[in-house]
Amino acid sequence: MSFALHPRLEADTLVLGELPLCRVLLCLDGRYPWVILVPRREGVREIHGLSVRDRATLMEEQAAVAAAMQAALSADKMNVAALGNMVPQLHVHVIARFEGDDAWPGAIWGAHPPLSYLGEQRDARVDQLRAAFGAIDGWHQGA
Amino acid sequence: MSFALHPRLEADTLVLGELPLCRVLLCLDGRYPWVILVPRREGVREIHGLSVRDRATLMEEQAAVAAAMQAALSADKMNVAALGNMVPQLHVHVIARFEGDDAWPGAIWGAHPPLSYLGEQRDARVDQLRAAFGAIDGWHQGA
Repeated sequence: MSFALHPRLEADTLVLGELPLCRVLLCLDGRYPWVILVPRREGVREIHGLSVRDRATLMEEQAAVAAAMQAALSADKMNVAALGNMVPQLHVHVIARFEGDDAWPGAIWGAHPPLSYLGEQRDARVDQLRAAFGAIDGWHQGA
Repeated sequence: MSFALHPRLEADTLVLGELPLCRVLLCLDGRYPWVILVPRREGVREIHGLSVRDRATLMEEQAAVAAAMQAALSADKMNVAALGNMVPQLHVHVIARFEGDDAWPGAIWGAHPPLSYLGEQRDARVDQLRAAFGAIDGWHQGA
């Protein structure tokens, strides 16, 4: 089946690259290093709606992304979450958290309105994360 | 290695039972059907700090718990998250969400102070969830 990103995710993110199961997106909120993984499967809203095999792949992809982000950014904690109350396409947030960041120690959702990246900051973040993800099995970079 | 629940989790929850990897807790906030899975591994704070094998087990346990809760409660959406900014012991939240619940469509963390269960409501919730989890492979009920 064909896969299309939900318009809301399309509008709020930029494509960093692809893993064997997931499209890897940068969320355009400069407050936090915030990546979103979207399994390229149509019509799935819940993790338990994936096959066992896809779940295992998702787990390894999200863990690899979280480990790479934590190492590259020296993050204090990684937050990993599948919420999807507003956007019905299954997606997993992977966010690098730092003591003293804008929402610390709370959750980020609803804490503050998104803060736009400045162009240079955004490009630097993209380069940094693509470099960090380059060593993950099956990674290939987006356009 | 011995496993002990973090005191904060101990204080805020009640044990529903055990799965092969995780202790399964009811979070004592009556606003939402809210379960917490804690892998019985000492000194692990991040999902990527678990072994590949434990990660696969965690994924299947959290998916089974989420599927059972959604079916038993007719929830509109399941929220699954590993945050852990405040409690350094790895734990995974699994929360049944309903359109129109106290935080809908936002995330629950920080939205409202916890609302104590009345004794009977709590007992009914415990019975309902234990019944729902009874069919999961390797489930055994807590005291």
